[in-house]
Formats: sequence, structure tokens, C-alpha cells
Amino acid sequence: MVKGENMQPMHQMMGYDRAITMFSPDGRLLQVEYAKKTVRQGSTAIAMACSDGLLFVTDKRVIDSLVVPEAVEKIWQIDEHIGATASGILSDARVLIERAQLKAQQHTITYDGPIDTLTIVKDICDLKQVCTQSGGLRPFGVSILIGGIDDHIPKLYETDPTGIFFQYRATVIGKGEVEVEEILHKEYNESLTIEEGFKLSLKDLRKVLGDNFKIERIDAAYITTNEKKFKKFSKEKIERTAANIKDIKEKKKK
Amino acid sequence: MVKGENMQPMHQMMGYDRAITMFSPDGRLLQVEYAKKTVRQGSTAIAMACSDGLLFVTDKRVIDSLVVPEAVEKIWQIDEHIGATASGILSDARVLIERAQLKAQQHTITYDGPIDTLTIVKDICDLKQVCTQSGGLRPFGVSILIGGIDDHIPKLYETDPTGIFFQYRATVIGKGEVEVEEILHKEYNESLTIEEGFKLSLKDLRKVLGDNFKIERIDAAYITTNEKKFKKFSKEKIERTAANIKDIKEKKKK
Amino acid sequence: MVKGENMQPMHQMMGYDRAITMFSPDGRLLQVEYAKKTVRQGSTAIAMACSDGLLFVTDKRVIDSLVVPEAVEKIWQIDEHIGATASGILSDARVLIERAQLKAQQHTITYDGPIDTLTIVKDICDLKQVCTQSGGLRPFGVSILIGGIDDHIPKLYETDPTGIFFQYRATVIGKGEVEVEEILHKEYNESLTIEEGFKLSLKDLRKVLGDNFKIERIDAAYITTNEKKFKKFSKEKIERTAANIKDIKEKKKK
Amino acid sequence: MVKGENMQPMHQMMGYDRAITMFSPDGRLLQVEYAKKTVRQGSTAIAMACSDGLLFVTDKRVIDSLVVPEAVEKIWQIDEHIGATASGILSDARVLIERAQLKAQQHTITYDGPIDTLTIVKDICDLKQVCTQSGGLRPFGVSILIGGIDDHIPKLYETDPTGIFFQYRATVIGKGEVEVEEILHKEYNESLTIEEGFKLSLKDLRKVLGDNFKIERIDAAYITTNEKKFKKFSKEKIERTAANIKDIKEKKKK
Amino acid sequence: MVKGENMQPMHQMMGYDRAITMFSPDGRLLQVEYAKKTVRQGSTAIAMACSDGLLFVTDKRVIDSLVVPEAVEKIWQIDEHIGATASGILSDARVLIERAQLKAQQHTITYDGPIDTLTIVKDICDLKQVCTQSGGLRPFGVSILIGGIDDHIPKLYETDPTGIFFQYRATVIGKGEVEVEEILHKEYNESLTIEEGFKLSLKDLRKVLGDNFKIERIDAAYITTNEKKFKKFSKEKIERTAANIKDIKEKKKK
Amino acid sequence: MVKGENMQPMHQMMGYDRAITMFSPDGRLLQVEYAKKTVRQGSTAIAMACSDGLLFVTDKRVIDSLVVPEAVEKIWQIDEHIGATASGILSDARVLIERAQLKAQQHTITYDGPIDTLTIVKDICDLKQVCTQSGGLRPFGVSILIGGIDDHIPKLYETDPTGIFFQYRATVIGKGEVEVEEILHKEYNESLTIEEGFKLSLKDLRKVLGDNFKIERIDAAYITTNEKKFKKFSKEKIERTAANIKDIKEKKKK
Amino acid sequence: MVKGENMQPMHQMMGYDRAITMFSPDGRLLQVEYAKKTVRQGSTAIAMACSDGLLFVTDKRVIDSLVVPEAVEKIWQIDEHIGATASGILSDARVLIERAQLKAQQHTITYDGPIDTLTIVKDICDLKQVCTQSGGLRPFGVSILIGGIDDHIPKLYETDPTGIFFQYRATVIGKGEVEVEEILHKEYNESLTIEEGFKLSLKDLRKVLGDNFKIERIDAAYITTNEKKFKKFSKEKIERTAANIKDIKEKKKK
Repeated sequence: MVKGENMQPMHQMMGYDRAITMFSPDGRLLQVEYAKKTVRQGSTAIAMACSDGLLFVTDKRVIDSLVVPEAVEKIWQIDEHIGATASGILSDARVLIERAQLKAQQHTITYDGPIDTLTIVKDICDLKQVCTQSGGLRPFGVSILIGGIDDHIPKLYETDPTGIFFQYRATVIGKGEVEVEEILHKEYNESLTIEEGFKLSLKDLRKVLGDNFKIERIDAAYITTNEKKFKKFSKEKIERTAANIKDIKEKKKK
Repeated sequence: MVKGENMQPMHQMMGYDRAITMFSPDGRLLQVEYAKKTVRQGSTAIAMACSDGLLFVTDKRVIDSLVVPEAVEKIWQIDEHIGATASGILSDARVLIERAQLKAQQHTITYDGPIDTLTIVKDICDLKQVCTQSGGLRPFGVSILIGGIDDHIPKLYETDPTGIFFQYRATVIGKGEVEVEEILHKEYNESLTIEEGFKLSLKDLRKVLGDNFKIERIDAAYITTNEKKFKKFSKEKIERTAANIKDIKEKKKK
Repeated sequence: MVKGENMQPMHQMMGYDRAITMFSPDGRLLQVEYAKKTVRQGSTAIAMACSDGLLFVTDKRVIDSLVVPEAVEKIWQIDEHIGATASGILSDARVLIERAQLKAQQHTITYDGPIDTLTIVKDICDLKQVCTQSGGLRPFGVSILIGGIDDHIPKLYETDPTGIFFQYRATVIGKGEVEVEEILHKEYNESLTIEEGFKLSLKDLRKVLGDNFKIERIDAAYITTNEKKFKKFSKEKIERTAANIKDIKEKKKK
Repeated sequence: MVKGENMQPMHQMMGYDRAITMFSPDGRLLQVEYAKKTVRQGSTAIAMACSDGLLFVTDKRVIDSLVVPEAVEKIWQIDEHIGATASGILSDARVLIERAQLKAQQHTITYDGPIDTLTIVKDICDLKQVCTQSGGLRPFGVSILIGGIDDHIPKLYETDPTGIFFQYRATVIGKGEVEVEEILHKEYNESLTIEEGFKLSLKDLRKVLGDNFKIERIDAAYITTNEKKFKKFSKEKIERTAANIKDIKEKKKK
Repeated sequence: MVKGENMQPMHQMMGYDRAITMFSPDGRLLQVEYAKKTVRQGSTAIAMACSDGLLFVTDKRVIDSLVVPEAVEKIWQIDEHIGATASGILSDARVLIERAQLKAQQHTITYDGPIDTLTIVKDICDLKQVCTQSGGLRPFGVSILIGGIDDHIPKLYETDPTGIFFQYRATVIGKGEVEVEEILHKEYNESLTIEEGFKLSLKDLRKVLGDNFKIERIDAAYITTNEKKFKKFSKEKIERTAANIKDIKEKKKK
Repeated sequence: MVKGENMQPMHQMMGYDRAITMFSPDGRLLQVEYAKKTVRQGSTAIAMACSDGLLFVTDKRVIDSLVVPEAVEKIWQIDEHIGATASGILSDARVLIERAQLKAQQHTITYDGPIDTLTIVKDICDLKQVCTQSGGLRPFGVSILIGGIDDHIPKLYETDPTGIFFQYRATVIGKGEVEVEEILHKEYNESLTIEEGFKLSLKDLRKVLGDNFKIERIDAAYITTNEKKFKKFSKEKIERTAANIKDIKEKKKK
Repeated sequence: MVKGENMQPMHQMMGYDRAITMFSPDGRLLQVEYAKKTVRQGSTAIAMACSDGLLFVTDKRVIDSLVVPEAVEKIWQIDEHIGATASGILSDARVLIERAQLKAQQHTITYDGPIDTLTIVKDICDLKQVCTQSGGLRPFGVSILIGGIDDHIPKLYETDPTGIFFQYRATVIGKGEVEVEEILHKEYNESLTIEEGFKLSLKDLRKVLGDNFKIERIDAAYITTNEKKFKKFSKEKIERTAANIKDIKEKKKK
């Protein structure tokens, strides 16, 4: 690196990203962009709306064999009919998930009916937005995928550190984002069942993780449109499906 | 870049835009100017007062085919007779839109009549102004177009990050601002119907977006002077109009 | 620019204007001085005490033909007998004007009589002063001309960003300050009627704006000593007077 | 200026005066010293205790002929028997004077007797001191001369931006400080009557202002020991005395 | 070290870790990473889930012979059935432990039953997370191992300065982390009894401490699955076991 | 001054004294040390415990002949039996003295008996300590000597800007500290009467002030052990004693 | 000192110790480490648990012969059965000691029994910890030795600026730490009586202070296990013991 050339832009940049709630001269909020980098270094999390419900499949990134893998949660139940997964700083995720769980509980008590998935999403994003605008707080370093069944329709949202959200049919966040997105664009379609989506997701994670792919690292959950109940896949189910994941490609090619 | 020449102005500038609520030596509030750059990088949003009501037409900038395009909102209903669109940081927009919706609701309950569009505009701008003057807050990085029917008259306002607003007959914000403004100056006039204005707007967006122009990216809404009810255009309506957008030019030349 | 010569004063200056509530080594409050520059870049606003009342004439600086010029306000009514105009950041002006309107209303309710113009002026200046002394706030970037009829006497005040005010017989702020002031010194005298003062003001603005002078850019208002009621000049009146503005010079020479 | 020589002291100084409530390594509060410079750039204000009462004479520094000179106040009544004048930032002065007026009023209501001049002085100085010690506030950039008749004795105090005060027999602040002080040392003595003191003061101001000396710029007031009532000199009285100011020197020489 | 090469990254880094609640351009929270270094310099603490309960074994790092070694606590009882040990800044640990003790007491009083270990863990981690996101606070410089018996099942958690936690079967923090972790991976299995685990832990600490290994430096405690009562090992027990620690290796090799 | 040599320590130092509540790497609180420099530049103040009571003698440093010297106070009465003098920033002193006077009054009302001198000292020092530890405040730039008669025993304390105090038999602060301390060590002893101590003090001040020594600059007070009443020496008494101050040396030599 | 070599580490270090509540890249809290340096520059304070009670012996570092040595306190009574001594910033110590005295009083009133020494220690350390973690406060620059008799057992604790504490049998803080610690390691044992410990301590101080050793500089106190009452040694007792301090060595050698 040549000193003279780089000194100036470096200095020029230094100011704008150190002060949280400030714009850079080109209109960017650098702190928020850095927070998004944190998300891209997180473990891979996939979610998709299927013909018969919602599916969440994630890498728990459990490397140390002394960790109790079943105790590591990367997919959380927010309400009976709503689940979520995240990528980024997990303690940041926990703060938001616990807030969402409380919000859902309060809704059920107050209105005697299930909360809308979008209401949960907006509430999380309101807090995320505040942390990009007020001094003395850093942005949340986590993206969260939130999915729920509202009136028999699976709804899936992705929220980023800015507090912006989009509804997706299928999406992926974290380290495997680029690779898995490419696969999803080719092989995902809305007629996939949860079962087929699960196979596709495991195939994705196997590709992303390579030799590090292990059943213990996988956390997976689903909510069927009929039952509307958040359920985790059992370890056995994950094992059986993983053993089977070559089938899906064939079907898609038809 | 030559080092000696640029070092001084660079250093000189560095101080004034880092501290939010400060003037630069030439009397500018740089943070607010940077926030306006954010707006100019946002997706294009057009609004116009027509002979029979108000019109909003925007690019939703949905690029990822896995996003559910219908779920992306770039035009929001504030009250039955008031709508808004925005360009810039969408989570900032949401904060202001939700505030406006609440304000409108409270007015209806308190006074038993519809709120004035200007009252909504001033309330949003008061908050925007505070964020340019008080420490510990950054300016809102979003411009908002707000339009409503007050006593059978369509009123359209543009608010910028400073908290300044102007009433427009027709206006455009975001990436396509320069291009579309030019077209509006040539082809817009107050006798245009919503229908004709819609064609003009779609023609504008086609020009701005080029090959990226797709029906799925368009969000459009209107409020007629008679009915005073905010309504979204259906996907089918947008398709039919887009197929038709060459007619308008001819009429204007008459 | 030679590096060695300028580096030291540049560094020396950098510190004092970045921290809002600080004096520079030569006893100046630089932030306040920069705020005054903002005012000098604002659009021109003229006010004068006439033999039969008060007059306000301003350039609305409406450049975009799509803006609704009648909706642009540069002169505001504060109370029935008090008006104001401003130059600088218009959203800052709005905050102060709305505060003054409220103050006037409260006075009427509490004391059952009209508020004194000077009381309004002092209240605005108190807030302006606070913003030059307390941390976490920037000075208001706006000068405000406030005029009212107190007991049949027209009173006109100019307030600057420091919170200092002076009573004037006639004054001008904003971009045209230097040019118009010169004319006022030559041609204004207290025996001018509102009608004559209006002609003089339009002549001034025509000189300042040159080819950009347009009826649509003019906002003008008056309060007669007898009636004590703030009134805007109609567009037609402005047009008629503008067509006529060569007469005044002759009269003055007598 | 030689670079190497000055760089170090410059850097060394930079830190201590930027942070309000800090001592420099040599035990000075630089912000307060800079505030005193502001005072020394203010317009000249003279006050003196005379054999028959108190006298205030000041330059109003009204340069613009469009300003209403009679409306410019540089001497304020605090209570019936107490007056004040100031040099420095006039909006800062107003804050302190209004506080003093309120304090005096409250005292009269509570104790049913006139407030002591010293009590007013201490109250103003307490607030001034706080602004030199607490963060988030700048020192007041104004010195105030306060004089009152307590039990038939004229008392005159000078308060500086530090919140320090001294009782003077005669004193001067602002731009003419050095020049006028010299004259006062030579020509003032306690046996001067208000009339004689007034002549001396006008002579002083004529010397300080030179060609800029004009009756319109003078604000003057007095409180006699007998009457104990703050009164402004009329314009006519000022004119008559100014025409007369050569007499005093002779008397003094006796 | 060569100056030119290192100056730039050094400067580049300086900004991001000085401001607590900020992301570096590569998406890291440097303050939190530095806090983790504090933990790695702390004295070694080992905890493991055994077939018959939980075990905590730590180095108290008592070097000065004048310290009363029995009074040094590195393992604390949080509730009857929950214990904890820590590595890092011990006064930080105390704040968190005392909070946990209070939380447990309140739970017992409110619900008349023992608190869940995970509830304690989450509560500690919520506070830790806040200290990584809010300005004016530094992250806690301590990792805490918390273990308890919930319904006859030993649960062991490790919490780091980020507020992230994982459930472990066996874990180690502090200076000996790398060395002991290696041994645990080889020799620990879930069928170990508390007795065997204790031997293994002492062997570990002997390896880490070398000649500095002394009975007085060891603090050790256990909670059996049956009894669910936190108990400290007596000095005599530690001595007897230490004398015996060569046996464990043999058993493991079987 | 050689550049290379001094640049590094200068930079190194710059950081630690700019932030109020921080330690330098060598464990010093530089802001407090700078505040002490302020004290050493103050006017000289002497106090001593004598065989028959307490004595305060100070230089009022009245240079301007227009100041009313009798109105300048450098010795204040805190309670009937307690007095104080100070060196440093006099407005800082006033804040502390007024606090002490209030504290004494409150004590008398609450307990119906005189307050202990030490209680006053501790209260002042508590406030001084807070200003060295909390952000947003600077240390008090003043040392205060406080003396009182508690149960017939004269007690004399010196408090510094740190909030540390010591009981002295005789002490001096301000510009003449070094010179007068030397004299006190040689010539003061506890058997001196107030009369003799007064002579000694005046001799000290004459030495310190040289040609600037004037009766008008002296403020002096005493409290006798019997009477326990704070009293100022009259101007006549000061004059008589000053005329006499050569006697004391002889007596001491005996 | 060579410039090139040292510039980088100097700059690198500058950032981390200026911001109070921050970790340096190597996981240290530099502000706290600097505070500890303050302690090491304080005057020497020794405390020890003896066979018949507790002992405190300190150097009061009274250098000025005009200070009243008996009035200088370096050992304070916290409760009837608890005492303390300190090294570092004495005004910081006073804040903590007064807090402890209040805490002890409140305990006695609330529980009608003596407070535990450890409770006092933890309370002081909680406040110390807060000052190392919260912004706007500096760490306390003082170590405190606290000793008390709890149920006939002497307990002695040392608290450092971090808020960490240890129980000691005998300990020393301040300037003489290294020297005295060495002696204590050789000559202290728990069977020493208060009398013998006192001799040992005086011997220590004589070694530390050399020619500066004087009876007037010594403050000493004890609490016997039987009586549980904090008592100061009289000046006579200190003199007699000091005259005698050669005996102890002999006894120890037996």
C-alpha cells in the first residue's frame, strides 16, 4: 500500500463512522453498514414459505464438541404460530426476540386472538430504527427472519439492522448468503412442500459448510398452514432427511 | 490527487459535518445536506394534483425475485383522504408515517371530522426540524410527499430532511428526480386527469428505469376529489396502462 | 494556496467553532456568526413603518414552476395586529412563529387584550439566546422581522440569531440586504404611506432579483394604524403596483 | 510567522480553551478570559457615584440611521432605586437583567421593602459563576454595571463574566475602557454632582467616539440620593449638556 | 517495527475501539473483544457436568502468603442448587453474582419454588448485552460459568462479555483455557463422577500452574443431582484428592 | 526550544488534563493540579491561631483607586464564631462561603447551638471532592482558610481544590505563600497574642508587597477565645499597627 | 529518547486511557491502573490481625511543622468495632469512609446489632466498581484497609480502586509497600500480640521513613478481640514503643 495515496481518503472517512447517528458526505449511515457486515459474518439461516407452511433451517455453528448442541437455539418460537431465526450478534437477537415474545403474549391477553406476524415485524423494526438515529446507542448487529401463519397464509419477513424489512417467499442471511441465494433462485418455487424445502435447505447448508456439515449443527423448525403450531424437527428427522438430500434436484429438473 | 493541495480543505471541512447541530463557516448545516443526498439515492417517487384528484406513482425497487412484490409498500394511506410516498431511508419514513397515521386518528376522534393535509405536513416537519437542531439525534434521511383532498381540493406537499415543505402541483423525489422533473415541466398541466397523469408517470418511470422497468416494481395510488378515498391501483390496471403509455404525448401536443 | 502559511491559523480556528457554546480566543461566538451567514443567504425580506401602518414585502424565491406559489408563505400573521417575515432556515422560522402565535393566543385569553409587539419579540429572543449558550443545541439559523400596531403606533423589530433585537423604521434581511439597505437609506422616510412604501419595496426587489423578478415570487402584507388588522395584498394589487413602480422616485425628489 | 517556533505552543493551547470547564496548565480558565474580550469589544458604558446620586452614561452604538435610536436601551431599570448598564453580548445582558428585575419584584412583594443593590449583584454573579463551572454552558459574555441607592448611599458595582464583582466609585467598561479610565482617574472625585459627572462622561465619550459622537448614540440615566428614583435624561438635556462640556475641566483644575 | 508500514492501520483502528458502542468497518465490536482478552488473562476456572452432579474447580491465584486463602472466593453460591465461577475482573463478577443471588431469592419468594438455571443465565446476559450497546458504559470484563441442577439434570452455561451464552458439558475459562480445553476434549466424558471429574480438574490445574500449584490456591465446589445442594470441598478433601490425581488417567485409558 | 525533544511529552500530556475526571499515567489528576496553580496566583491570605484567639490578615489586592476598598471583602464571617479567607477565583470562593453560611444558620436553628468548625470544613470539602470526580464540572479554583472557636479553642483549617484539608497553627496561601511560610516557621509560635500575630502578619505582607503595600489593601479580622465573636479590625487599628511593625522582631529574639 | 521508535506506541496508547470506561486492546482498564499508581504514591499504611485483636499503624506524612499533627487523621473509626486506614487521595477516602460510617449507623438502628466487617467492605467496593464502569466518573484514587472484630475474630480487608478486595492477615499500602511487605513476610506471624505487632510496624515505618521518622507523623489504633472497641494509641504510648522497637527482632528469632 502506498502511503501518500491512501492517507487522505482514510482520514476523510474516519470521522463519519465514528459518530453513530451521522451521515457521511455521500449520504450513508456507515455504522449501520458496518453492522450489516456483522450479519454477513453470522452463521447461515434459511427460511421459506412452502405450499403447506413455513420452514426455518439454520446452521448453529457449534464447533466445540463440549457444547451441548441441543441446547443451542438458532430458531425461536415467538408465538404459537410465529417463529424466527437470526444471523449476527446473538445477544442482540435475544433482546429483540424476547421483546417480540412479550409483545405477542400481551396481544393474546388484550385481544384474545393471535397477533399478526407483520405487527411483530414492525415492532422489532421500530426499535432497530431508533438505534440508528439516537445518540448513545449502536445499531443492532443482527438480521432477523420472522415467519408466521396469518389466516392460513404463510408470511415471511427479513429485517435488517436499519430497521427496514421486506416480505420474502424464501431468503437466506449470514455467511452462506451469496451461495444459498443463488441456489434458491434456481431451485425454489412456491409449490415446494415443507418436506421438499427442508431437503433443499439441507443441500444448501451442506454446500456452504462442506466438511463441517454435521447433523448436530442443524436447527430446523416448521409451522404448517393447517395446524399453525411452531414445531422443531427432531434430530432423527434431520438425519433421515440429510441422508436423502440428493432426491430434490431430480424433482426440480422435471 | 495531489496531497498538498487537498489536505487543508479536507481538514477544514472535517469538523463541521461531524457535529450534528452545527453550522459550517459558510452557514450550512452539512449533516442535513448529506441526508438530502440519501434522499436523492432513494427510489423514484412521483405525485401530482390532477383535475379529478391526487395521484402517487412510485418505483418499489424490488430487485430480488424472491421478495413478495405486492407486500412492498412505497405508498401509504395516512387517513381515508390522505396518502404519502417517500424516498430515502425507508425505516425513517415508517417512523414518520406511523406518527402521521396516529395524529390523523386522534384528530378524527377528537374533532369528529377529517384532519387537514397541512396539519399532518406541519407535524411531520416539526419533528424533522427538531432532529436538525438538537444534539444526540441525526436528521431524518427521507423526503416525504403527502397529498390529501381538503374540501374537494387536492393538496400536495413535499417535505425535505430540514423540515421545510412546499406545496406542489406535481413533483418527484429520489434517483429519477432530475429526469422526471424535466418531463413534468414539459408535459404536466393541471387539466390532466388521474388517468392521464398515471400514463405520464409510468412513461417517466420507464425512462428512468430503462430495462429494469417491470410492472412488479410499480406501486400506484389515487384519491379522487369526489370520493375522497385513498385507493391503490390494481396490478391489472397498472399492466393495462403501461401497455398504453404512448398515447399521452400526442394529447399534450395539441 | 501555500501550505506552511495557512496550516496554523486553520488548525487554530478549527477548535472554536466546532463546540457550540464556546468563545474563540478573540471573544467571538463563531457558531452564531455562521448562523448569521445562513440568514444572509436567505431570500430578501423588507419591512417598514409607514405613516399609516406597517408593511412587509418579501421574495418567496419560488423557482420551480410546479410549486404552488400562493401556498408559499414568507409573511405570517402572529396576532390580529402583529405580523412577521423571516430570512434563513424556514423550518427554524416556523418553530419560532408557531411559538409566537401560541404566546399571543395565551395572552389574549389571559388578559383579554392584545399582546404588545415587544413582548413577542423578547420571547422569541429569549429562546434564541438559550440556543447560543446551552450545549446540545445549535443557534436558530434565521432572522425574523416582527411588526405590530401597539396603541396606534407601528412598531417594527429585527431579531438576529444571537437573540439581539433592534427597533427599526425600515429594514431588510437576506440576500438583498446590502443593495436594499442602500436604497432605503436614500429613499425611505417616515412620511411614506403604505402605498408608497409598497412601490419602493417592489422597486427594491426588482433591482435585487433582476430578470428573476416575477409577481408570483412576491408575498406582501400590511397592517394599518387605524384598522390594526393584518392583511395580505392580493395578487392583483401586487400586479397593479408593480406596473407602476417608477412613480415613487419622482415624488421623493421633491 | 515561522512554523517550527509556533507549532508547539499553539497545539499546547488548543486543548484547554475548547473544553469549557477546564483549567489550563498555568491555572487559567481560558473560556472566561475570551468572554472578557467580548466585553472589551462592546460599546462603552460609564457609571459613577456622585455627591447627589448615581449616574449611568453609555454609547448605544446605533450606526444605522434606520434604527429607532430611542428604542435602543443600554441602561435598564431593575427596581425603582436600582439601574444597570452593560457591555458585551446584549442578549446575554437581557437574560441577566430580566432575572434581576424579577428578583427585585419578588423581594418587594415578600418583604414589603426595597431590595439591597448588593443582593441583586450577588444573584447575578451566582448565575455567572455557575456558567464558568458546569459543562454544557458557556460563560456569559457580558459585564454589567449595577448601581442603586441603599439608605441614601449610592452603591455602584461592576460584575465580570467570572462572576466576580467589585464596588467602584466610578468605572467604565467596553471599548473605551482604557481611555476613559485614564480620564476618570484624573478628573473624577466624589464631590462631583450628577450634573458635573454627566458633563465629564459626555466629554469622555466624545473623546472615545471622535467623529462618531452623536446625541442619538447616548443613553443616560441617574438616581438621586434624595428621590431614589431611576430616571432617564431627556434628549434635550443630553443636547444641552453636550454643548456645554468644556466647562468641567476648568472647575477640576481649581 | 517499520514506521511507514504500520502507521496507517494503526490510525485506522484507533477510532473504532475508543467509542464503546460502535462497529468497526469490518463489523466487529472491538471493546467487547478487548474485554474478552481480560477474561483470557484471568485465573483458570473449570466446570463440568458429571454423571452424579455438577463440579466447579478453580485457581484462586493467591500469591501473597499474607492473604487469608480461605477467604478468597472464586466459586459462589447463587441459590441452594446453583453455583457459579468466573474469570476476568472480579469486581465485575461480584456485581453480576450479587444480582443473580437477589434474582434467585426474589423468585423463591414469589413462586415458592427453585429458579431455573437458564433464567439466571439469561438475566445476567441481558445486563451484559446492554453494556455493549448503550453509551456511557463499558462491557463487563468477565466470563461467568453458571451451573445448577434443574429437575435432577445438571445444567452448565458459559456467558461471555457480549452477553452470549452456551450450554456446555464441560468447559474452562481464563489463562489455562487452551491447555485445559485440550485435556477436557481427550479425557472428559459424561460418565465421569464428580469424584473423577475433580481428579481430572486438579490434574489440569497442576499442569497449568506447574510449580505454582498449591492446595491453598484451589477453590472447588459441587452440587449432586440427588441432594441439589451447593457444597464446597474441604481443604482436607482437596489435599487427599490432589495426592491421588495420577489414578484418573489410567481409568480413562480403559 | 528544540522541536524534536519536546514534541513527544507535549502530546503525551495533552490527553490527560483535558478530560476532567481522569488520572494521568503517573497517577495524577492534572486538572486539580492546575486549579492549585490558580490558588498560588491569588492574593496572599494569612491566618493563625493565637494564645487569645484567631487571626486573619489578607491582601485585598485593590489596585484601581476607583474601587471602594472598604467594600472589598477577602475575609468573611461564616457564623458568629467562625470566619474564613480565600485565595484563587473569588467567585468560586463566594459559592462555597455562602454555602457554609447557610449550613451554619441551619445548624443553629436545628440544634440551638453553634456549629463545629470542622463540620463546616468537611461540608465544603465534600463539595470540592465531587467536583474532582464527576464529569461536567471543573474543580473549584480556590483554597479556603476556615477558622473558628470551638469550646474556647481556636481551630484553623486549610482546604485545597482537591477537597483535602489540614488543621494548622498558622498558615498562608496565595502569591506570598513561599515567602510568608518561611517567616512563619521562624517567627510564629503559639504564645503569640492576636496583637503580636497581627504585627507579624503585616510585616509579612509588607515584605511580599514591597512598594505596593498600602493600608487600603489590608483586610484583617479576629475572633477572641473569650468573646467568640468575629470582628474586623478598623482601618485606624490597621494603620496604627502598621506604623509599629518593627517591634515584633525584637520581642521574638528574646 | 529516540523519536521514531516511540511515536507509535505513544499514539497507540493515547486513546485507551483517555476514555474512562474503556478497555485497551490488551484487555486492561488503564484509568484504573493509573489510579493504583496514585495509591502507591500515598503515605504508608499498615494493618494486621494479631492474636489479641487488630492493629492499624500509619505514617501521617505531616511535613509542615505548622500543621497540628494530632488533628491529622489517617485512621478512622467506622463503627465501635471497625476501623480503617487509607493510602491515595485523602478526599476520596473521606467520601468512602463517611459512607461506611453512615452504613454502619443505619445497620445498628435497623437490626439492633453490629454490622459485619465484610458488609462494609462490599458496600465500599460496589461504589468503587461503579466508578470504573460508568461514564462521567473517574475511579476512586484510594485503597482502603478495613478491619473489624466479628464474633471475636479479627477480620482485615484491603480494597483497591477496581473494587476488588482480599482478606489479609497483615498488609501494607502506599509508598512503603514493597519494603514493608518484605519485612512482614519475614517477621509477621499470627501469634503476634497487638503490642508486638505495634513494635514491628514502627520498625517498618522507621525503615521506610529513615530520617523523616518522627513520633508526630505516626497515627496508630487497635481493636482488641475482647473489648471490640476501636481505640487510638496515645502519643505517649507511641513514644514509649518507638523507643523500644529493637526488642521485637530478638523475640522473633527465638
